[in-house]
Amino acid sequence: AGKRRGEPDRARAATLRERFDAVRRATLALAAPLSPEDQQVQSMPDASPVKWHLAHTTWFFEEFVLSRALPRRPRFHPRFAYLFNSYYEAVGPRHERPRRGLLTRPSLAEVHAYRAHVDAGVGEWLDAGRCGGGELDVLELGLHHEQQHQELVLTDVKHALFQNPLRPAWRADLPGPSGAAAGPLRFEALPGGLVEVGDGGAGFAFDNERPRHRAFLEPFALAARPVSNGEVAEFVAEGGYRRPELWLSDGFAAVKARGWEAPLYWEPDGGGFAEFTLAGTRPLDLDAPAAHLSFFEADAVARFLGARLPTEEEWEAAASGAEVAGNLAEAGRYHPCAAASADGPGQLFGDVWEWTRSAYAPYPGFAPAPGALGEYNGKFMVSQLVLRGGSAFTPASHLRPTYRNFFYPDARWQLAGLRVAKDLR
Amino acid sequence: AGKRRGEPDRARAATLRERFDAVRRATLALAAPLSPEDQQVQSMPDASPVKWHLAHTTWFFEEFVLSRALPRRPRFHPRFAYLFNSYYEAVGPRHERPRRGLLTRPSLAEVHAYRAHVDAGVGEWLDAGRCGGGELDVLELGLHHEQQHQELVLTDVKHALFQNPLRPAWRADLPGPSGAAAGPLRFEALPGGLVEVGDGGAGFAFDNERPRHRAFLEPFALAARPVSNGEVAEFVAEGGYRRPELWLSDGFAAVKARGWEAPLYWEPDGGGFAEFTLAGTRPLDLDAPAAHLSFFEADAVARFLGARLPTEEEWEAAASGAEVAGNLAEAGRYHPCAAASADGPGQLFGDVWEWTRSAYAPYPGFAPAPGALGEYNGKFMVSQLVLRGGSAFTPASHLRPTYRNFFYPDARWQLAGLRVAKDLR
Amino acid sequence: AGKRRGEPDRARAATLRERFDAVRRATLALAAPLSPEDQQVQSMPDASPVKWHLAHTTWFFEEFVLSRALPRRPRFHPRFAYLFNSYYEAVGPRHERPRRGLLTRPSLAEVHAYRAHVDAGVGEWLDAGRCGGGELDVLELGLHHEQQHQELVLTDVKHALFQNPLRPAWRADLPGPSGAAAGPLRFEALPGGLVEVGDGGAGFAFDNERPRHRAFLEPFALAARPVSNGEVAEFVAEGGYRRPELWLSDGFAAVKARGWEAPLYWEPDGGGFAEFTLAGTRPLDLDAPAAHLSFFEADAVARFLGARLPTEEEWEAAASGAEVAGNLAEAGRYHPCAAASADGPGQLFGDVWEWTRSAYAPYPGFAPAPGALGEYNGKFMVSQLVLRGGSAFTPASHLRPTYRNFFYPDARWQLAGLRVAKDLR
Amino acid sequence: AGKRRGEPDRARAATLRERFDAVRRATLALAAPLSPEDQQVQSMPDASPVKWHLAHTTWFFEEFVLSRALPRRPRFHPRFAYLFNSYYEAVGPRHERPRRGLLTRPSLAEVHAYRAHVDAGVGEWLDAGRCGGGELDVLELGLHHEQQHQELVLTDVKHALFQNPLRPAWRADLPGPSGAAAGPLRFEALPGGLVEVGDGGAGFAFDNERPRHRAFLEPFALAARPVSNGEVAEFVAEGGYRRPELWLSDGFAAVKARGWEAPLYWEPDGGGFAEFTLAGTRPLDLDAPAAHLSFFEADAVARFLGARLPTEEEWEAAASGAEVAGNLAEAGRYHPCAAASADGPGQLFGDVWEWTRSAYAPYPGFAPAPGALGEYNGKFMVSQLVLRGGSAFTPASHLRPTYRNFFYPDARWQLAGLRVAKDLR
Ligand SMILES: [Fe+3]
Ligand SMILES: [Fe+3]
Ligand SMILES: [Fe+3]
Ligand SMILES: [Fe+3]
Repeated sequence: AGKRRGEPDRARAATLRERFDAVRRATLALAAPLSPEDQQVQSMPDASPVKWHLAHTTWFFEEFVLSRALPRRPRFHPRFAYLFNSYYEAVGPRHERPRRGLLTRPSLAEVHAYRAHVDAGVGEWLDAGRCGGGELDVLELGLHHEQQHQELVLTDVKHALFQNPLRPAWRADLPGPSGAAAGPLRFEALPGGLVEVGDGGAGFAFDNERPRHRAFLEPFALAARPVSNGEVAEFVAEGGYRRPELWLSDGFAAVKARGWEAPLYWEPDGGGFAEFTLAGTRPLDLDAPAAHLSFFEADAVARFLGARLPTEEEWEAAASGAEVAGNLAEAGRYHPCAAASADGPGQLFGDVWEWTRSAYAPYPGFAPAPGALGEYNGKFMVSQLVLRGGSAFTPASHLRPTYRNFFYPDARWQLAGLRVAKDLR
Repeated sequence: AGKRRGEPDRARAATLRERFDAVRRATLALAAPLSPEDQQVQSMPDASPVKWHLAHTTWFFEEFVLSRALPRRPRFHPRFAYLFNSYYEAVGPRHERPRRGLLTRPSLAEVHAYRAHVDAGVGEWLDAGRCGGGELDVLELGLHHEQQHQELVLTDVKHALFQNPLRPAWRADLPGPSGAAAGPLRFEALPGGLVEVGDGGAGFAFDNERPRHRAFLEPFALAARPVSNGEVAEFVAEGGYRRPELWLSDGFAAVKARGWEAPLYWEPDGGGFAEFTLAGTRPLDLDAPAAHLSFFEADAVARFLGARLPTEEEWEAAASGAEVAGNLAEAGRYHPCAAASADGPGQLFGDVWEWTRSAYAPYPGFAPAPGALGEYNGKFMVSQLVLRGGSAFTPASHLRPTYRNFFYPDARWQLAGLRVAKDLR
Repeated sequence: AGKRRGEPDRARAATLRERFDAVRRATLALAAPLSPEDQQVQSMPDASPVKWHLAHTTWFFEEFVLSRALPRRPRFHPRFAYLFNSYYEAVGPRHERPRRGLLTRPSLAEVHAYRAHVDAGVGEWLDAGRCGGGELDVLELGLHHEQQHQELVLTDVKHALFQNPLRPAWRADLPGPSGAAAGPLRFEALPGGLVEVGDGGAGFAFDNERPRHRAFLEPFALAARPVSNGEVAEFVAEGGYRRPELWLSDGFAAVKARGWEAPLYWEPDGGGFAEFTLAGTRPLDLDAPAAHLSFFEADAVARFLGARLPTEEEWEAAASGAEVAGNLAEAGRYHPCAAASADGPGQLFGDVWEWTRSAYAPYPGFAPAPGALGEYNGKFMVSQLVLRGGSAFTPASHLRPTYRNFFYPDARWQLAGLRVAKDLR
Repeated sequence: AGKRRGEPDRARAATLRERFDAVRRATLALAAPLSPEDQQVQSMPDASPVKWHLAHTTWFFEEFVLSRALPRRPRFHPRFAYLFNSYYEAVGPRHERPRRGLLTRPSLAEVHAYRAHVDAGVGEWLDAGRCGGGELDVLELGLHHEQQHQELVLTDVKHALFQNPLRPAWRADLPGPSGAAAGPLRFEALPGGLVEVGDGGAGFAFDNERPRHRAFLEPFALAARPVSNGEVAEFVAEGGYRRPELWLSDGFAAVKARGWEAPLYWEPDGGGFAEFTLAGTRPLDLDAPAAHLSFFEADAVARFLGARLPTEEEWEAAASGAEVAGNLAEAGRYHPCAAASADGPGQLFGDVWEWTRSAYAPYPGFAPAPGALGEYNGKFMVSQLVLRGGSAFTPASHLRPTYRNFFYPDARWQLAGLRVAKDLR
């Protein structure tokens, strides 16, 4: 960033070349255990086929990097922009989201060829080294974009496989529980006051993390770990899903309309519960952080525990010094697990995304990027809630303490749980 | 409030007696121009029949005041708690909201008798003067509750009458436009900083306005008046409803799904628009504040004007010293109108509720009341947006600068418009 | 009918004048026990408000009789054709059916004035005696049309009142059970062969009853009475609503989708059932003919009884000599009741409409009338099933043995039951 | 059939062995041009994935033939009965129909192994020659069942491929139009009278074709060929889809609700239309029989042509002597084509299924088979219409003049068209 935006930056291009190769390979590795049929299906409108993710992330580079940097290089297929544009109105019309699973053509093999074609183009362009800073910024955005889709590949495949009464596995060879004990739920007091939140650094961050700004917090306490499966099992056992006083009104309406009786992927097993995982159905580990909860459930569980969800500013204040480390994708578990208990708030990163009570909204002074990429984040800033911290599906290199994830309050197919907070006055 | 909660407070009882009579009479006056049939219908699940409003507000006093203060006094009808409980889970089961319009019995005459029965009971109890402070607090809450429903009577009747192709009037005798000119849109700069928001006084406020707390604001500018019909007409004329770049993603989806092409109640008329009002269809007054906009539309119109919606804290900071005065229900217009232009932000109260970009959420330290009345506000704190300032349907005695109204972002049948803001850094 | 169609027919005009007055009065008598609110509501899209029935039947005379006979006589209101046209595309656009209940204006009083206005016009025209045969045919059609709506007033009011948890009565003074015993289910053998069905006479019949034509029937047996509540109670007790082998596939899908566990209007009462009637909730009379069954339920009950539904030709062959008499509207019961047992098939007319297994289809050689009145019947000849015999809600003067009623197979709010048949070879 | 049902019948077993092999091979040949992904998708609840068809037809033999004949032979997979039972309630619970497309496991390769496993079992059993007549009857039913699914494979694949904006082909090598001219629409007079319909022979027929019985027909005329694309194009050009007078009421409601403006698979092309076929999009052949019409459209087109649809008895009377020959699956066209004009009614078999105006209902004396196979046809006998004659997707060996196909009146994805009739009195 010492360079001007328009100026070629060979060193950064070389670094990004390596990162590009690694990220693109990582996506294919996630898809590798799956058959062409597994990669074809779309289990619900919110999810996408794996094959579509493979193509869409490729289109992102073709559309926003290659076709701008090398406008005369032919596109792989004249209709792929229509098929694989997700939601960029400024780019043009596109295939309807709920119908992505009907696209049996291009085949998986053709999508692999599409990836190779675009990878070759990006590689040559990077190797040529005439890339300006603005162009490399977009490439870097594309890598973070692809990492977001890596997490979605996992959440969407898990959901798709769960639709099958055979409860098949993505990979049957994943490790089991960590063996650590959750221990009692402890809280750490934090002073609040005038804090700074949001990204103010020179490195990559999404536009929604900016600008860095001040916020005033009252003193509060934050739990030392996420809420465990054992605590949610107690919520279930004590009738939590049938007690309206624990729920927001919209939440209890969702419970009744959808017949929720436990977190998604829990299935009765003897007197207790088993849990569907990417390795198939396994006994529920009561010590591990609870996952696949909607905001509505997280909010109700917090109330059941005599606590509340933190705001995103509280969460960020607590996490501001912390290292981005934990049970993330690199750990290869692809499932939350219990950690040895820590002093301060621990397990802030990894295991499960943590619902906050903060609505996803623009930070003061937020301005989306001009053009189509301004649609990346800003146009979703209503009716969703912020989650923080990353999950066992998230690559470590994708995260920051200022990272803002966001979903609708009824979404359960993400690897999302909660950490509770309390007022201190 | 110098008294202890349990202690009788004769003076306050006498004051509330007068206010009780006035508020109850005011409700009936709103219904008076309507036939029994007009008071029967429910035009959509979000709206309720006028007759139901008349009975429900009465049930509120019977349930939360009379049956607690005088537990041996017989209820008017053993099933009315089932029919007229709106959403209080702690009180018991209730008639489904979308089916309120099917209750042809009790008749309007019986509901009038119900009101008289409960009014007599409350009157006798107040006159007896043995009312504790906590009991009077609930009575006062009941009066503010009834005033909220007065506004809903008007919004719901307007919506119901609009369903009729004859476009009938509630009262054909309402005054027309004020004749004032909107003038150009000016902004007032405000310094921000650490401000206090929320109610901290001794008088009545809803629990959602509390506790008073600190918030940090960046410098901002606020428009001197609400956005006018003329400005929205320009938005329409310039294709605003067809330009996705002006909308939040959910908002544009709503536009397409519901076929929105103009604000609710606007109807093409010659080259321009007419507008349905409580006095029937009238020419659109381009100088008056625009109304019956959803949050989605308000947000898009703000973007069209190169501005944004304020946060509720910004709004409250701007309004903190202001007197609660303006085109409110007492003015008898029952429709927004243009005002003579002012120096500071004017028309903060009355005319139209002003959408903010703030999600409706608990203030730091918020605690709902114990028992059923804790359901009054707290359980709705998700997925809705805050509106401020009151409308031409709101009684002045119902408002405060800290007052928080809230609706879902797609709601258009409320008398809601917008005032725009800008960042100053 | 000795006259030519265009020629005035004073005698017929005089007869129809009397009948017109009687039919119009009868409709008002059915509405008389109901408040304006009762007459306002629409409980589902299939039903209409009583007030709408009052206006629509009036519009029928204004549109098809008065405005043709006296084209210069002003219409009562220029928009009533829009509001009260039911489905005549050739007449012009109209208010959407599911939104009839939202028309609070015109008020009931205005609709009464509309009736008086049209009645006066028709009366004067008939008295003047210059009515041609074709015009009188349409008037007579209008009278039968109004009688059809008399039955609908009762079925729709019953449905509307049932939506109210108070279970209010239309008229609390209706007589109770007849006290007769249903007796065992006997069958009468009928020879079949080449029979004639359909109307071939000179009197009034709907176009769908024509032309009279031949049909070949195998020998069959027909039950001597309709299926009783006792028999349906046994169906319920033996798990009939949970046994797919008794149902058509679409029928069992309806059972599951709508949670049917008993006929409409049955409510558990002690170990048995009570039944909602136009006089409020009463104990179920096990000897009375079962009512408020869909075709799906009728078909399943027939199968449960080791029998089947008759075809409409079988029914008509059995009824061809019979007198139109029984528990019809004139009996003033407005509810099915048990009859003393008879030799041949008894209770063919009245009590309950009897579902046949015949799809509603055009008779060979059927031709609808030209113009708008051709829409009266013909355009509904798909996906519905024929019912025969009339009910306790049907006026005797409205029926013939050739009369074809028709409803969709899932309709339950009509006073419909069944009579079973068997093959004899 | 000279044998008793329980007795082994070696000659018939040998014949069926050959037919079994041929039918099973034919199914695989239809699937062969498709990728695993193509065979995975389900484009709508009415359609099924090709892979599912492959497995379901196999399950039919495993369930109804093998597991009865050789009860100790292990099933291929313990859960396949759950996954691949279509609708047989008597066999047990099953995977929901609209979710068949989500079953990515078993993979296509596993389904092929399932087919081979069951084929081997059936082959060995047939070769052993100890098969009773009743068992062979069920085997033969299974072959006709599989042939029905062969047609569904084609209709479902066509529908699935059409969802893709790339409009891909099943097989790009199919022949084009025949080059014959449709010629003017001529009618053949038929005498009617007392006719016999239904199957009365010793060969295979479905239970719904029985018993053979008498029906009386008025004299009528039947068109010499199906209605052509040219005639439907004229219907479209003259506003047929916007003229309510041409439609049944339910039909016009469907037109409006679904936005129909032309037959399914027609797409505007220059001033005319192109048509999606199994070979991709091709110019519309105006001389070929029109296809992919719903009953509603067929009925409206008939009315537009001043005619009507025939009853199924009329159709069968006209076809009773005719040879089953025409543009059937064996022709390898897989698309309707124009034929040289004939004297009598021609093209009765093949090209397009012909909608009749007859509701699908039990013949007099119809009795379904006992047990689960009684569910094959009988439970669908409501709300559907009969089609006759087979299509370009139907194998010749599957048809008879008495064959009754049936679909709901709004179904358009079948290869269905119409032939018109007229009354002659
Ligand atoms: Fe994306
Ligand atoms: Fe309320
Ligand atoms: Fe009518
Ligand atoms: Fe099948």
